[in-house]
Amino acid sequence: MRISRKPTGARFFELFAEIGTNIGAGVEVLREYVRAPHDRRPELAARMHALENVGDDATHAIIEHLDRSFVTPFDREDIYRLTSRLDDVVDHMDAAIDLATLYRVGELPRGVETLVDLLCQAARLTADAMPRLAEPQRLTDFWVQVNRLENEADQVYRRLLSELFDGERDALEVMKLKDVVDELEAAADAFEHVADAVHSIAVKES
Amino acid sequence: MRISRKPTGARFFELFAEIGTNIGAGVEVLREYVRAPHDRRPELAARMHALENVGDDATHAIIEHLDRSFVTPFDREDIYRLTSRLDDVVDHMDAAIDLATLYRVGELPRGVETLVDLLCQAARLTADAMPRLAEPQRLTDFWVQVNRLENEADQVYRRLLSELFDGERDALEVMKLKDVVDELEAAADAFEHVADAVHSIAVKES
Amino acid sequence: MRISRKPTGARFFELFAEIGTNIGAGVEVLREYVRAPHDRRPELAARMHALENVGDDATHAIIEHLDRSFVTPFDREDIYRLTSRLDDVVDHMDAAIDLATLYRVGELPRGVETLVDLLCQAARLTADAMPRLAEPQRLTDFWVQVNRLENEADQVYRRLLSELFDGERDALEVMKLKDVVDELEAAADAFEHVADAVHSIAVKES
Repeated sequence: MRISRKPTGARFFELFAEIGTNIGAGVEVLREYVRAPHDRRPELAARMHALENVGDDATHAIIEHLDRSFVTPFDREDIYRLTSRLDDVVDHMDAAIDLATLYRVGELPRGVETLVDLLCQAARLTADAMPRLAEPQRLTDFWVQVNRLENEADQVYRRLLSELFDGERDALEVMKLKDVVDELEAAADAFEHVADAVHSIAVKES
Repeated sequence: MRISRKPTGARFFELFAEIGTNIGAGVEVLREYVRAPHDRRPELAARMHALENVGDDATHAIIEHLDRSFVTPFDREDIYRLTSRLDDVVDHMDAAIDLATLYRVGELPRGVETLVDLLCQAARLTADAMPRLAEPQRLTDFWVQVNRLENEADQVYRRLLSELFDGERDALEVMKLKDVVDELEAAADAFEHVADAVHSIAVKES
Repeated sequence: MRISRKPTGARFFELFAEIGTNIGAGVEVLREYVRAPHDRRPELAARMHALENVGDDATHAIIEHLDRSFVTPFDREDIYRLTSRLDDVVDHMDAAIDLATLYRVGELPRGVETLVDLLCQAARLTADAMPRLAEPQRLTDFWVQVNRLENEADQVYRRLLSELFDGERDALEVMKLKDVVDELEAAADAFEHVADAVHSIAVKES
């Protein structure tokens, strides 16, 4: 007999769902940032930073709930790992925007929009998966799709780098843009790490 | 009484052995690439990419086998971790070649060959260790040697960087070459992470 | 009834305390390096490297003790993880100094001293926490403070980058200094990973 983990886990799943929604909001700010005129950048950077703080609060709420809970829906260390990987996603999106603003980079190369589109798709999948964590085995589609997106992002990222290097930009501008693009790529990786953490929970439970 | 884990684990160990062999093939392409004239680069990049796909298939086969297996030779999460770390090795070798080809980098600095030689040695040790995973405690030599090689690779990598920076190359060319060399160094790290994953399994079983 | 883990763990806690002390010594060399005239750099780099070797020896001593111990104060894999993360701290500090010496970088930007100050604080907290590992639940303050310091380090790091890029340095010098600064930032991250490993042990035990 398998005891439903719904009752004991309800609060955890709520918090994970909140984090998923927050990631969705973050990726929308990112999408807007990429297309925005330069004078709107500081305002959007501030909005992203506020979302990063919301994410931090939800992260701490999960850890505190973990400390107080006698029974948990998954192994404690798996909840802990998933939480910190979700946190990484917003951290990297925030870093990308923060660096672009701080460096006052000029026109972003075209591939950046494609990369951000892939992040939007990964964010949507993640926001959809979080409220369904109670049945991790049914999330196969989630991790398969996110892994596929990360592979695509990798290709886009490499084309983007070669676009950066072969363009008419000077070396310092290339370095700045590369820092920004590296953070976007790290965000794509972070989504994959979230998916892997969920997959690993499902494997354990199977 | 210790029950032999041979029968239940046989399929896992076969798949790990396959991955070990595949890594060995990848490192040979890498060695060839480093010495090849530029017009052969795209062909070698394609060969490496094909090996990366073989590795992905073996990775998925292990995960699927994990999903279907009731009894596993090690903890599920350890098999999962080892698999994804082995995957990283070929990913980084593939990235190195892909970037070098995409960027059309010129002459590779001499230290690159030394670095690739160390990767060849680590690959050989890994290919040898994989079929013997059933007795992880007997693989002490494997992780000690791979850790030693990673330390050496680290030294070679740093000398290589200072060679890059002190040479007569312009800044953009240095950035491109550094990206390639960073991936080779990441491959050396990835071998160490594989060795650590095996070590960690052995520690758990001891 | 909870059996005290003091007797079985004593040797582990001694070794962790040694590593904590060693990290404290490393960060002092780093602080001296930042202010030292260039001709003292090789000597300080050698001192840091010696400390890195001491750290490696303590790391191996813990792993060997783990291999020989029948009973351990925490799960084996947690001891293993904490050990390797502590090792990373000194590795990154050593890399920062090694690269700065090898590259013969000029004047370090002012923000570097601020960053090193934060590392000193994290080192002190870590050295204080290590001898108290027997009661991980009482180390809340440790991981909260280290996480706070890492957030601060992140801010300082980004301002430092923008200082680097907006200055009058040429591209190659910027790349060299960035490599050094990246290792310092990685050291701050490594302290956070140590704190997270301790937190994760506490969560498991709670």
